[in-house]
Amino acid sequence: MSAPGSLRIVGLGPGGDAWITPEASQFIANATDLAGYAPSLERLPHKQGQRRHQSGNGDELERARHALRLAGDGRHVALVSGGDPGIFAMAAAVFEAIDEGEPGWRDIDVAVSPGITAMQAAAARIGAPLGHDFCAISLSDNLKPWHLVEKRLALAASADFVIALYNPASAARPDRIHDAFALLRSLKLASTPVVFARAVGREDEHISIVTLAGADPGLADMSTLIIVGSSETRLIPRVGATPFVYTPRGIKVPR
Amino acid sequence: MSAPGSLRIVGLGPGGDAWITPEASQFIANATDLAGYAPSLERLPHKQGQRRHQSGNGDELERARHALRLAGDGRHVALVSGGDPGIFAMAAAVFEAIDEGEPGWRDIDVAVSPGITAMQAAAARIGAPLGHDFCAISLSDNLKPWHLVEKRLALAASADFVIALYNPASAARPDRIHDAFALLRSLKLASTPVVFARAVGREDEHISIVTLAGADPGLADMSTLIIVGSSETRLIPRVGATPFVYTPRGIKVPR
Repeated sequence: MSAPGSLRIVGLGPGGDAWITPEASQFIANATDLAGYAPSLERLPHKQGQRRHQSGNGDELERARHALRLAGDGRHVALVSGGDPGIFAMAAAVFEAIDEGEPGWRDIDVAVSPGITAMQAAAARIGAPLGHDFCAISLSDNLKPWHLVEKRLALAASADFVIALYNPASAARPDRIHDAFALLRSLKLASTPVVFARAVGREDEHISIVTLAGADPGLADMSTLIIVGSSETRLIPRVGATPFVYTPRGIKVPR
Repeated sequence: MSAPGSLRIVGLGPGGDAWITPEASQFIANATDLAGYAPSLERLPHKQGQRRHQSGNGDELERARHALRLAGDGRHVALVSGGDPGIFAMAAAVFEAIDEGEPGWRDIDVAVSPGITAMQAAAARIGAPLGHDFCAISLSDNLKPWHLVEKRLALAASADFVIALYNPASAARPDRIHDAFALLRSLKLASTPVVFARAVGREDEHISIVTLAGADPGLADMSTLIIVGSSETRLIPRVGATPFVYTPRGIKVPR
């Protein structure tokens, strides 16, 4: 049996180096092996003697198992992903793999390093839309039935949460995002602020602020994070600049 | 009129230096003035010539206005807070102050730097409980009516979101957290995993993993973040170690 390895599940934030935490940088520097989806690995400089295990955007569970096998063989693995690995990213896949996999995998030294997730970066760019109670929903129906997504959207609207939508676009099912917006439009005010934040922190970052009535959900791709305001979410108009968008900390009492 | 100042609203993460992003460090290094709640400022080393404006845990809006006035006077201000300033922290207070304040404040160069928020740090320490759809609710009823908190808890339970609870303890209203747990117990399985994460990233960090039936909500203080699982949230038992807690990425189809 080889010396014990380790697995660090590391988030790089949504883009750029300025949001990569010192902990994440340290875990990456200390790794003998880097594993991850190709666009995440490409963000990291090559280092002499450090092996790379690049995967496509395929089966996350298989990517997780590969990283666990490497750690089981005594390697010190950093499994990197964009954003926060704990939020709609690789960490859950790793723990699913451990739960269903070889009993010995439970003894591997595994730790998660959190990162800035897309909704935080998008929020920071425009103001403070997540300043009050909110929810985060993945619109992908690869792993859950669509009726559950619709149920959650409806309940989130009833609760008047600010709603962050991850994975809004599906090549296989391009109508889903339109269905989601049709549902939200039937439940929320037409004037509700909606933010489309694409590739935040990357060179091709693009953010648009629209209303629920005016939103074109067809513009969302898999690099887009959408924030749908609550009934309290407000715009602060500015001269010669995009408005700020924020949700007050409390429910206003009329003055 | 003085030269234009600036305001950077900066998150330090929940504790420790390893989660302070390079962007946050840069904004702090470049500031002529640091402002914030005393425990946040105390995390930062003193720097020659950099002024400090320390406030108590009082009126966030007044703290925001003070920072805006300094920026309006040409100072380069970093307003620091723990966690992510965009999530139940200072950013919303600043935009409220701008919205209600002097028209000139809208022209101040304001930017937000996101940080790791408590639920992400807590999740990373124990596994991946936020791996599926979730919501974040502040239990503080200083700024919203308690019946709205209860309504949101009930709808979040109906939606089967993982629920992150911020500000669980109130010195003024110690019964509230018990009311919240009584409600959740009436709506969710007794075996639902619940995580109490206190002071994550600080020297006195303490995390306990219990069930909804066995949870003692009286143990929560204002430094505690609580995560209440969904019906899918699972534990992975380990020999001689605390279990991992995770929520699978999807709804399992029986095998």
